[in-house]
Amino acid sequence: MNLILLSPEDFINESRVRLAGRRLDHVRTVHRASVGDELCIGLINGRIGTGTIVLLNRDALEIELRFERLPPPKLPLTLVLALPRPKVLRRVLRSVSAMGVKKLVLLNSVRVEKSYWQSPFLAPEAVQEQLVLGLEQAKDTVLPEILLRPLFKPFVEDELPCLCKDTLSLVAHPHASEACPRYVNEPVTLIIGPEGGFIPYEIEKLVALGFLSVTTGERIWSVETAVPALIARLF
Amino acid sequence: MNLILLSPEDFINESRVRLAGRRLDHVRTVHRASVGDELCIGLINGRIGTGTIVLLNRDALEIELRFERLPPPKLPLTLVLALPRPKVLRRVLRSVSAMGVKKLVLLNSVRVEKSYWQSPFLAPEAVQEQLVLGLEQAKDTVLPEILLRPLFKPFVEDELPCLCKDTLSLVAHPHASEACPRYVNEPVTLIIGPEGGFIPYEIEKLVALGFLSVTTGERIWSVETAVPALIARLF
Repeated sequence: MNLILLSPEDFINESRVRLAGRRLDHVRTVHRASVGDELCIGLINGRIGTGTIVLLNRDALEIELRFERLPPPKLPLTLVLALPRPKVLRRVLRSVSAMGVKKLVLLNSVRVEKSYWQSPFLAPEAVQEQLVLGLEQAKDTVLPEILLRPLFKPFVEDELPCLCKDTLSLVAHPHASEACPRYVNEPVTLIIGPEGGFIPYEIEKLVALGFLSVTTGERIWSVETAVPALIARLF
Repeated sequence: MNLILLSPEDFINESRVRLAGRRLDHVRTVHRASVGDELCIGLINGRIGTGTIVLLNRDALEIELRFERLPPPKLPLTLVLALPRPKVLRRVLRSVSAMGVKKLVLLNSVRVEKSYWQSPFLAPEAVQEQLVLGLEQAKDTVLPEILLRPLFKPFVEDELPCLCKDTLSLVAHPHASEACPRYVNEPVTLIIGPEGGFIPYEIEKLVALGFLSVTTGERIWSVETAVPALIARLF
């Protein structure tokens, strides 16, 4: 937790918050902070600054706040991921959030197991929990928007053309011949398939929309590796 | 498991292996393969090819092998990581192995908890298990060499000068002002610090050796994100 993320309901007056639970525990046991210490703080979807601890005991933490700057700029990226299996999803949500992605679509594919869509890890509060962990790690405040799209065809036909308009549109595919571009200076829509890859019909639908099928070499990466690696290569 | 990794002891004659246990289970329940199907196979530290299933039942899998090509080229990278906490270590070993790193040093730092060095996940067979999973994911066969260095100063003074000779020597540090270079065409020694970063003394020792302290932007990444992201940016 490199930044303590605050919500409007934490405020007890204009410049002071009172925290309990997870954030209190973390400041006591990991930061091992005391009254007078300064912490990096941020308001959810808002500004970042410095907080001075004015009260700290087993029950509560009170911090006096000074907001100083905007959060880091968001990545100009819409990331579309074939829904990964639930345990992997949690880690991917954290890394997506930590890297500054602000729009993530979780999409169905023939190779996504149907049961994944029933996972409790897809509940809004479970998703938000992982996104918050990512923001706290990265020192950001802006929650990504998450869209669940359990039907491939309607999403690709009806929504994707609008989403990817005026962006560099890429689909990462192990069997592509084109290398994934590096350090592009423009908005990107990046699609990453499921374990085992998209089926040919799915790739054809994306290519017909103008998506360029790109590879990162001979090695096949897991989605957990592919997400940070592809983002770091593109931006 | 995109490649079935084989050891010399799996062979029952020159061109045939007999497998049980984890690989048998995977081929039956995940690949749902049958006799006559072809699988991607590779010999540990050796060549890659195609295997045809000649026998498959609850007790054994026999594959007739045809070796065809060399494994993908290794990355010209020596990666030095402050030892992460054990659960993270397992995932980092998999991603390091999957990305083609062939030399990894796990190093102590003031901010590495002493207990991490006692973790059962550091036992050679536990480390190898994760490395094999990474190779099977990526379709590679060459195990990375792993060096454990529980003393910072002797490693940095006595071994590191030799290791990093004639390489681009980088230490990833959140407070650096220089941006991490991209797509370099030369061997690299890359050092990544612990959660909370190296202490100033440690950074100074590395900089004195000629290491360039580099950043990837305002956001602070976890080691699980930093490893694939930095490797993908460099190569």
